[in-house]
Amino acid sequence: MIRLFVPHDLSTGARLDLDEGQSRYLAAVMRQAPGDAVAVFNGRDGEWRAVVASVTKRGVSLDVDALARPQAEGPDLDLVVALVKRARLETIVEKAAELGARRVRPVITERTQADHTRVDRLQAIAVEASEQTGRLDVPQVLEPVRLERMLADWEAGRRLLFCDEAGEARPVLQAVDGAGAWAILIGPEGGFSPRERAVLRALPFATPAGLGPRILRADTAAISALTLWQAAVGDWR
Amino acid sequence: MIRLFVPHDLSTGARLDLDEGQSRYLAAVMRQAPGDAVAVFNGRDGEWRAVVASVTKRGVSLDVDALARPQAEGPDLDLVVALVKRARLETIVEKAAELGARRVRPVITERTQADHTRVDRLQAIAVEASEQTGRLDVPQVLEPVRLERMLADWEAGRRLLFCDEAGEARPVLQAVDGAGAWAILIGPEGGFSPRERAVLRALPFATPAGLGPRILRADTAAISALTLWQAAVGDWR
Repeated sequence: MIRLFVPHDLSTGARLDLDEGQSRYLAAVMRQAPGDAVAVFNGRDGEWRAVVASVTKRGVSLDVDALARPQAEGPDLDLVVALVKRARLETIVEKAAELGARRVRPVITERTQADHTRVDRLQAIAVEASEQTGRLDVPQVLEPVRLERMLADWEAGRRLLFCDEAGEARPVLQAVDGAGAWAILIGPEGGFSPRERAVLRALPFATPAGLGPRILRADTAAISALTLWQAAVGDWR
Repeated sequence: MIRLFVPHDLSTGARLDLDEGQSRYLAAVMRQAPGDAVAVFNGRDGEWRAVVASVTKRGVSLDVDALARPQAEGPDLDLVVALVKRARLETIVEKAAELGARRVRPVITERTQADHTRVDRLQAIAVEASEQTGRLDVPQVLEPVRLERMLADWEAGRRLLFCDEAGEARPVLQAVDGAGAWAILIGPEGGFSPRERAVLRALPFATPAGLGPRILRADTAAISALTLWQAAVGDWR
C-alpha cells in the first residue's frame, strides 16, 4: 500500500488536494486511478485509509475514509551528526528515519570538511524514508550549527551518547543506562579533535560509548548506534 | 597510515612488488615516495609495517619491516543476503567488512529480482573496506546460490539467525542465545515468500529474530543485525 505524508488535517470525509509532486507520483508513476486506496499520515492524526477521488490535469484528490492506526509517539531520540560528504549524510538521514530518530541535527566540528548542506533536500529524504518505513511521523532535519553552540544551548534533561572511537569507553548497550530523552552524537570521518573530546568527556549530560574494535565510517557508526540504543531502551525491546 | 591487503607472505626483510593497481594508488593517488611507511596485511601473518623501497614505472616495491599486530581471528559470522539492487548490495558488502563478518554469501530467493552479480567487484569492495576499517582479514564473497540449495548443504554446527520482518519473533539480542558459529540471513526487499518462511521456521538450526516495529531496507537490516550480533556474542562486548 502506497503511504503519503501530507500536510492536511485528517478525519473521515476530508478531501485532500495533493500538491504537484504527490499528484504526479500517484498518477504518472504509480498509475493510481479513482477508487484506488492509499494510506496517508500527517504526524498528528495517525494513519488513515484514503481513496483516490479524482485524477485531473490540475492534480489528484483523495477522500479520507477510516483511521487505520492511531497516532503514537516513538522514543525521544535525536541524532546529532557531523556534516559528512553529501551521499553519506543522505544515507544517514534515510537510516535515522527507518530507525526511529525524532530529529536529525547536523553539526559543524573542527574536522568537518563541509560547512553547509541543503536541509530541504535532507528533509525530503526523511519524508520519503518515513513513508516507506511505516512510521507515523517524520524526523525533523534542523539547520547545521557549530558543536560548541549546540552544547552551550543543550536542552535540560536530555542525555548525550557520545560515540568515541578514539578512547576507552563502554559498549553502547552498557553506556545507555536508562530510558528518557537522548541524543546520539556521531563525529566526522576524521574523528573529534582532542579539544572536542576533552570538552565532551567533561559534560555532565554526556556518556561516552564505544562501537567495537574496528574503524567505522560515519554512516555505519550512526546506524549501529541508533540500532543499539533502540535495542537497549527504545522500541526494539 | 595507508593500509594495503597484499597476497605476499609477510616477514621482516621481505620485498613486496605491488601489482599495477596498488602501485598506481600509492604513487599517483597517495603520492608516496621511498622511505614512506605503509601498513600491510594478508589475512594470515598479521599486520606489518613496511617502507616504500622504490617507485618506478614498473611499479612500487615495499620492504617489510616489523610486525605491528599479530594475526587474530574475529568471530565466526557469515552474512547470507538475498541479491538486492547493486548499489545496496555493494553497501552491504562494505558494511559486512566494517562489522566483522567473515563471509558474505549472496542467495537467490523466490522474490529476488536479480539472479546474478559481479562477485569480483563485490570482493574488491570487501578488500577496500577491510583496509580502511583496520581488520586483519578480508571477508570472502561467495558466488550466489539458491536459498534451498544453501540450506540443503548447511554446515553442521552453524546457527542461522533468520531476520523475519513478517512474523512474531524475539528481538535479536534475545534470539542470539550463545556464541559460536552463526550466519545472519537477510531477505530481499519484498521479504521471504510464505513457503520460504515456513521452511526457515522449521529448520532445527534456524532462529527467527525481529528487527523492531518499522520496515527496514535490506542494507539497514543487514547493518542492524550484524551490529546486534556483535554486541550480543561477538567482539563488541
